[in-house]
Amino acid sequence: MVLKYADRMEQVKGLETREIIKFIGNPDIISFAGGLPAPELFPIEELKRISVRVLEEGGTGALQYVPTDGYLPLREKIAERMQKMGITASAENILIINGSQQGIDFSGKIFLNPGDVVICEKPSYLGAIGAFRAYQAQFVEIPTDNNGMRMDELEKALASTSNVKLIYVTPDFQNPTGITWSAKRRKEFIEIINKHNLPVIEDNPYGELRYEGEMINPIKSYDTEGRVIFLGTFSKILCPGFRIGWVCADKEVLSKYILIKEAADIQCNTMAQREVTLFLEEYDIDGHIEKIKLVYKRRRDVMIKIINEEFPPEAKYSIPEGGLFTWIELPEHINGRKLLEKAQEQKVAFVPGGCFFPNGGHENSIRLNFSNMPEEKIVEGMKRLANILREELIN
Amino acid sequence: MVLKYADRMEQVKGLETREIIKFIGNPDIISFAGGLPAPELFPIEELKRISVRVLEEGGTGALQYVPTDGYLPLREKIAERMQKMGITASAENILIINGSQQGIDFSGKIFLNPGDVVICEKPSYLGAIGAFRAYQAQFVEIPTDNNGMRMDELEKALASTSNVKLIYVTPDFQNPTGITWSAKRRKEFIEIINKHNLPVIEDNPYGELRYEGEMINPIKSYDTEGRVIFLGTFSKILCPGFRIGWVCADKEVLSKYILIKEAADIQCNTMAQREVTLFLEEYDIDGHIEKIKLVYKRRRDVMIKIINEEFPPEAKYSIPEGGLFTWIELPEHINGRKLLEKAQEQKVAFVPGGCFFPNGGHENSIRLNFSNMPEEKIVEGMKRLANILREELIN
Repeated sequence: MVLKYADRMEQVKGLETREIIKFIGNPDIISFAGGLPAPELFPIEELKRISVRVLEEGGTGALQYVPTDGYLPLREKIAERMQKMGITASAENILIINGSQQGIDFSGKIFLNPGDVVICEKPSYLGAIGAFRAYQAQFVEIPTDNNGMRMDELEKALASTSNVKLIYVTPDFQNPTGITWSAKRRKEFIEIINKHNLPVIEDNPYGELRYEGEMINPIKSYDTEGRVIFLGTFSKILCPGFRIGWVCADKEVLSKYILIKEAADIQCNTMAQREVTLFLEEYDIDGHIEKIKLVYKRRRDVMIKIINEEFPPEAKYSIPEGGLFTWIELPEHINGRKLLEKAQEQKVAFVPGGCFFPNGGHENSIRLNFSNMPEEKIVEGMKRLANILREELIN
Repeated sequence: MVLKYADRMEQVKGLETREIIKFIGNPDIISFAGGLPAPELFPIEELKRISVRVLEEGGTGALQYVPTDGYLPLREKIAERMQKMGITASAENILIINGSQQGIDFSGKIFLNPGDVVICEKPSYLGAIGAFRAYQAQFVEIPTDNNGMRMDELEKALASTSNVKLIYVTPDFQNPTGITWSAKRRKEFIEIINKHNLPVIEDNPYGELRYEGEMINPIKSYDTEGRVIFLGTFSKILCPGFRIGWVCADKEVLSKYILIKEAADIQCNTMAQREVTLFLEEYDIDGHIEKIKLVYKRRRDVMIKIINEEFPPEAKYSIPEGGLFTWIELPEHINGRKLLEKAQEQKVAFVPGGCFFPNGGHENSIRLNFSNMPEEKIVEGMKRLANILREELIN
């Protein structure tokens, strides 16, 4: 029996993230693979109290359907946080979604016909590449430098590509490179997208996890025309298991996301929406984020120190000012996927860089996560990786 | 500023369900509109204990990412329930999704190219119509009788329609009509879909809510070729706020759903998955379902009694053996949408029948939900409706 699938399924492949998630909770593996938060930082005692209170105070309402756009007090709280980032928003601009991944998927559904072009950073987040492929997208990758996407290259691409329908960017501590766009670059970018009337997905899961340097407001804060659709999430600042993220967009654009949400899965988990709300109302999320930042900064520093001291000098690395990842470029003859096989023999995992390039190539890179493992495991795992790399470079 | 949306967005319209959900919790309205469970039956004390235990025993794992296919103990428990319905299944055949609506959406994504035909019952579930429209589906509606979809009409449609890619059915206590397919009809149906090698979505949110008559095994239980994809949910037997449903399918077919789930939103809420698991492990869900059935049966009986005694004889109604809905056909000159306007003036709500017909027409019908309102409100609301109808028929 072979059923006939839609054409799009030819482009839908398993993501490397699936393989990555298999390592979760396996204590034998030192994993720099997933973008996993440190579970020991989850505010579990607070959430225990909150989950009972949500049922005591909210009663059966916490278990019933709610409107598709989400629980109003949560949308109001999120709008307040958006305002602190310089974004003009009220609850009417917020839709609650199952983590920012769902916002990426909906963006593909709302904007892309088969064959349409998505412009993205080179490299880009592999979950976004996977989501857009399911809408039969093509990709034009724009080179980046230390200040983010290169605007000269973006203009060149826009001048020579006819069917661009969407731009997808992660301007803060990008996944996978850790790069953050400068304020100047953000302003130039807004001018360009306004000229071309293009919608932009600003994916911002890590923006609040800055370990040094000054915060730069999101691209959305420079958007006066409603072309930027901002995606946020509580996955990295609270916990991913709740699957609570949000879309912040112009009301007219947001109405499309609400229609699609309704057809896709009606609404997000009601209890989780109320739990996050109560946490925001009664606990100090900014203080909690400060705690996370302290721990992750130290982990980043430990990782960078070992790269610096023990990795062969041919390995070029970035020092991200925030987020969860650092990115390593290796000499061209080193293949990240083959390197992973050797690392796994030594019980170390990471993500080969090639899968972040939708049009292929660049197999000589790897992405390393520093948020999930305790410092001593980072030391041990990175030393193992350094050994493997040295051996590879000798052969 | 007008952004350019994908072609599919022209077919994506707001569902009447959105309007319906606005009535939730408004104590002034007697609503027969939504397919809402009775909130007073949610096992709230048990869920309070469970939510704490999930965090105490599961620790941070209850808040972290889990594999896309879902929490293994939950998939095992669901597979056991499937076996009790005569379906051969193990955890490998189960994917956890955000309520069965997400399974409908994924089915459209996996099977439909623009312009492809979905065959459905006439009338059919409006949430499915909405989900498939987002994949630019066309619909061929097959007439039903008291034993379900008419097989002669199905064969006729298959013989005369070239691009059928999917069949969507709700054989148990259908939404909106309340009709249940006979076992004979189910067997004939399987023969036909095998001959045509067509995938079938068997949507079964109400199957366990039978108030009289004998249980008939799902169509999936007659499927030896892996062509039937069964969608289940805890929304009506536990609570909808968790958004926990499942796909039960052949492993090869299920692998497509897992790929699409990963690209769509990575996974379902981890805590909710564990909460449902603990409820299944340590509480008596079958006993809980019996309690629900007792209450809903009485509510159905009260509703039917008033239709029988007070509605004009021109109103033709069904007595469903289970589920949440009854369906009323009115004389052709009565329009359900206009009737709703008058009912709302009297603070009564229902869903006009026309929106369950993807190709239009049949505005002289209405769907009434009997699960959500207490008996005295059913009496009061139905009497108001009877008055409105009598007046309409005089004019």
